[in-house]
Amino acid sequence: MLTSKEIDTAFQKNKEKAFKEFFDFLAIPSVSSEPVHKKDILKGAEWVKKYLEQLGFKTEVWETPVHPVIFGSWDKAGPDQPTLLIYNHYDVQPVDPLNLWETPPFQPTVRDGEVYARGAQDNKGQCFYVLQALKTLLETTGKLPINVKLIIEGEEECGSVGLESVLKTKQKELKADHLAIVDLGIPSMNDPTLTLGIRGITTMDVTLTGSNTDMHSGFHGGIAFNPIHALVELLGKLRDANGKIMIPHYYDDVLPLLPEDRKDLAMDFDEAKYFKEFGAKANGGESNLTPNERAWIRPTVEINGIWGGYTGDGFKTVIPAQAHAKVSLRLVAGQDPKKAVKMVTEFLKANVRDGMKVDVHVHPGGGPAVRVKPSSKLVQAFAKAYAEVFGKACKFIYGGGSIPIVTALAEASGSDVVMLGLGLASDKIHAPNEHFGLKRIEMGVPIIAGALQNLKK
Amino acid sequence: MLTSKEIDTAFQKNKEKAFKEFFDFLAIPSVSSEPVHKKDILKGAEWVKKYLEQLGFKTEVWETPVHPVIFGSWDKAGPDQPTLLIYNHYDVQPVDPLNLWETPPFQPTVRDGEVYARGAQDNKGQCFYVLQALKTLLETTGKLPINVKLIIEGEEECGSVGLESVLKTKQKELKADHLAIVDLGIPSMNDPTLTLGIRGITTMDVTLTGSNTDMHSGFHGGIAFNPIHALVELLGKLRDANGKIMIPHYYDDVLPLLPEDRKDLAMDFDEAKYFKEFGAKANGGESNLTPNERAWIRPTVEINGIWGGYTGDGFKTVIPAQAHAKVSLRLVAGQDPKKAVKMVTEFLKANVRDGMKVDVHVHPGGGPAVRVKPSSKLVQAFAKAYAEVFGKACKFIYGGGSIPIVTALAEASGSDVVMLGLGLASDKIHAPNEHFGLKRIEMGVPIIAGALQNLKK
Repeated sequence: MLTSKEIDTAFQKNKEKAFKEFFDFLAIPSVSSEPVHKKDILKGAEWVKKYLEQLGFKTEVWETPVHPVIFGSWDKAGPDQPTLLIYNHYDVQPVDPLNLWETPPFQPTVRDGEVYARGAQDNKGQCFYVLQALKTLLETTGKLPINVKLIIEGEEECGSVGLESVLKTKQKELKADHLAIVDLGIPSMNDPTLTLGIRGITTMDVTLTGSNTDMHSGFHGGIAFNPIHALVELLGKLRDANGKIMIPHYYDDVLPLLPEDRKDLAMDFDEAKYFKEFGAKANGGESNLTPNERAWIRPTVEINGIWGGYTGDGFKTVIPAQAHAKVSLRLVAGQDPKKAVKMVTEFLKANVRDGMKVDVHVHPGGGPAVRVKPSSKLVQAFAKAYAEVFGKACKFIYGGGSIPIVTALAEASGSDVVMLGLGLASDKIHAPNEHFGLKRIEMGVPIIAGALQNLKK
Repeated sequence: MLTSKEIDTAFQKNKEKAFKEFFDFLAIPSVSSEPVHKKDILKGAEWVKKYLEQLGFKTEVWETPVHPVIFGSWDKAGPDQPTLLIYNHYDVQPVDPLNLWETPPFQPTVRDGEVYARGAQDNKGQCFYVLQALKTLLETTGKLPINVKLIIEGEEECGSVGLESVLKTKQKELKADHLAIVDLGIPSMNDPTLTLGIRGITTMDVTLTGSNTDMHSGFHGGIAFNPIHALVELLGKLRDANGKIMIPHYYDDVLPLLPEDRKDLAMDFDEAKYFKEFGAKANGGESNLTPNERAWIRPTVEINGIWGGYTGDGFKTVIPAQAHAKVSLRLVAGQDPKKAVKMVTEFLKANVRDGMKVDVHVHPGGGPAVRVKPSSKLVQAFAKAYAEVFGKACKFIYGGGSIPIVTALAEASGSDVVMLGLGLASDKIHAPNEHFGLKRIEMGVPIIAGALQNLKK
C-alpha cells in the first residue's frame, strides 16, 4: 500500500504534462444546455473516452436522447475485490454574462495558482484528479487495488434526463459495491470533509397572463391589472418576514437530523468571511436557523429568474400581457419532488390576483434529496484518505446543491453512496470567472488513490 | 366657411393619392429610442419637412441633442387673425416582440379598412390628417382661415428631452394664441370627445444588489438573500390588497375634479367590452373608484419591466447578484414629478430587505400632468367641429397617457391648450399589430379644417 506522500511524489513527475492535458479538456466548450454547443459536447465525450482508453479502461459510449454518457471499467482486481463506481460529468454551465469574465471562459488561464475557466472546478477539475489518481496507481503499481467503473455524463448541468432514461437498461454494467460522487466540496482548505447529504431539486417556469396583448400603461395604467404587479405580489407571498416559506404543509415531510448524524458534523459558518467573499449577508432563509442548517437540511423555493415587460435600454411604457419567473425547489430528505411541485402550484393558483391566469411548466429532470449514514465502510474509507492528505481528522457536512442523478444511480448500481470533492464556495461555479486551484488537483490524486486502497479487502 | 361635408367631398378627390403618401410615411422605421434607427429618424424628419414645403409652409429644422424637430408656419391670414400651433410627432415606439406582428410593422397593410403598421395611429396617422386638412383647405380656398404653426417632433416616444432643451430659445417662433395637441383619442367611434387633461409621467430604473457575484442556488440558497426575492417583496409592498399605493403622502397633492369639470364628462366604462377586447379584467387600480377615475385622475406606480437571473431556455440555478425593474409614475394634476420620485425612492430604500443595496436611476424627460377648463374658446372651437362631423354633441374626457412636452410647449408658446385626436383604445399603440382606421383619417380632415374656421375672428 502506497502512502499519500508516495502517490504525490509519483504524480509530481507527470504534473506538467497532466496540467497541459487538463487545459485541453477545459478548452472544450461543452455547454450541455445550449444546442449551439452540441458538437462541443461530442468533443468533450470523445476526449474522456480516449483518456480512459489510454489508461487501459474498457469504454462504452451510451447514446441517450440528450447527450452521450461515457462508461469505463477496469476489472483486473478480480472477483474477490469490491467494485467502486465513480461518477463525474464532462458538461459545463453556460457562460453568460460573458462580459463579466476577466479572461475568456474556454481559454484556461492561471492566476495565483488558480486556473480560470468554465468547468475548472464543476466538474472537469474534479473529474481530472480522479483520472490522474487512476493513472498514477496504474503507472506506479501496474494495477488498481480494486475494480473500478467510471460513469462520466454530459448533461448534469441540464438535468441528466438522458442518462436517467438509459440507467434501467444498464444495471449489469453499473453493478457495483460502492458509488462515489466526485462533484462536491469542502468548507475550506483546512477542512477535510465528506458530504453525507445533498438537497434534491425540481424546477419550473411560472407564467402569469393578464391580457391578450401588451398594453399602453398610460391608457390602461390603473385600469388593467399589470401581470408584473400580480407576479411580485404573488411571489412576495411565498415567504414571511422571517424567511419561512408560507406554502401550507411545505415543511411537513422534512426529516430532522438525528444525534448520530450531528456527531462529527462541521456546522460552523463564518458570516464575516462570507460577506467578505460574496458581498452578501447570510440572511437568506429562516431567521431562527443557522446558515448551514438553512442550506443543508431546509428546503427552498427560489426564484432563479424573473422577466416581463420592457427590459432594454431606455424606457417603454408597457403593461405586458404576461410576466414570467423561473422557480426551483431545493428539497431535503423526506420530501417528494412531485408532492412539493403540487403544493407550490396549488399555492400559486390559490393566491394569485383575480383575473390572472397562472401556468406552471415543470422541467424534466430533478430528483429527491440524498442523506447517508456516517458509519458505512465507503464513508470511512474516504474519510481516512482525506485525513491522511490533510493531516487532520475528516469531518462531515451536507451539501445544499443537488445532483439529481445520485438516487437513480445508487438504485441502478445497487451501491451505497459517498459524496465528495475539493470544491470551495469561492470557486464561482455557475458564475463568471469560475476557477479551481491546481494545488487541489494535486491533493485529489492521493485522496482518490488512498480511498481505493482503503477499500481493498 | 366650408361645411364639414364640403371639406370631405374635396378630400375624397385626393384620397387615393393621400393614402399612398400615408403608407410611405408609415414605411419609415423612425423608432426614436433605438440608436440603430438614427438614419430612419432623419428620413422621417425629411419626409415631414418636404410635405410641409409642398403645402406652402415655411419650414425650419431645429437640431436638438437628440432628434430634429420640424417647425412649419403659414402666416398669410394676417396679424388680425389668431395663430394656432399644432403639435404632432413623427417618431414611433420600438416594435418588439416582433414575432407577434401579423404583418411586418413597417410594411403598412390594410385589413378590414384598418391600416396595420407601427405608428399607424401613434402619431403618424393623427399627424397625417392634420396635414390633409391643411392641404384640403389650401387647395379648395387658396388659403387658411387663421395663421397656423406646426411643431412635429421626433422623440415623443423617448421623452422629448431634445425638444424641451430648445424650447426656451424658440419662444418667438412658437408664439401662438392656441395650442392643439393632436395625439389623443376618443372612447369609441360614437363618442366625439376632447381631452381636458392628461397624466404626467416620470420613469426610473430600480436595481437591487445583493452580492458581488452571481451565486449557485444550491450552495447559497437559504444562505444568501436572493435579490429577486427582495425585489418582489419590495415591489409587492407598493400596493395594498385594494390597489391603494402605500407610499406615504403619495396622494396628498392630488387635485380632485370640481363640479364644473365633471359637467359633460363621459365617465362611463364598459367592463365587459374591455374584457372582450383585451382579455383583461378592469381591476388594476384602487378598488373603490371607477376604472376611468383610476386612469384619469389617480396616479400610478407601474412596473413596466422586470428582470433578473436566468431568463433563457431551460434552467440555470443561479442567485443573481442583481435584480432590476423599470418603474413609471403616472401623475395627476397637483403632483410634482420631482417630489413623487423622491417619495418613491425613499419608500424603496426604507422598505428593502436588510443587506440589499437600492439604486434608483431617473430617466430624463417626463413632466407634470395637464388639466384644462372646458369653457375656453379653443376647446369650444374644436368641440363644435367634432359635433358637426360626428353629428352629436361633443363630450369631454381625460386621458391616462402622458405627453411630457405639453406643459413646456404651452409655456413656450404662451397659448391655451386643447388635446384631441381620433385614437381608440383598441388601436394597440405601443404593442404588436398597431392599427388605425382609414375612415378616421377621412374624419380627421373636416374636424381640423372645421376648428380652424371656428377660430377665425
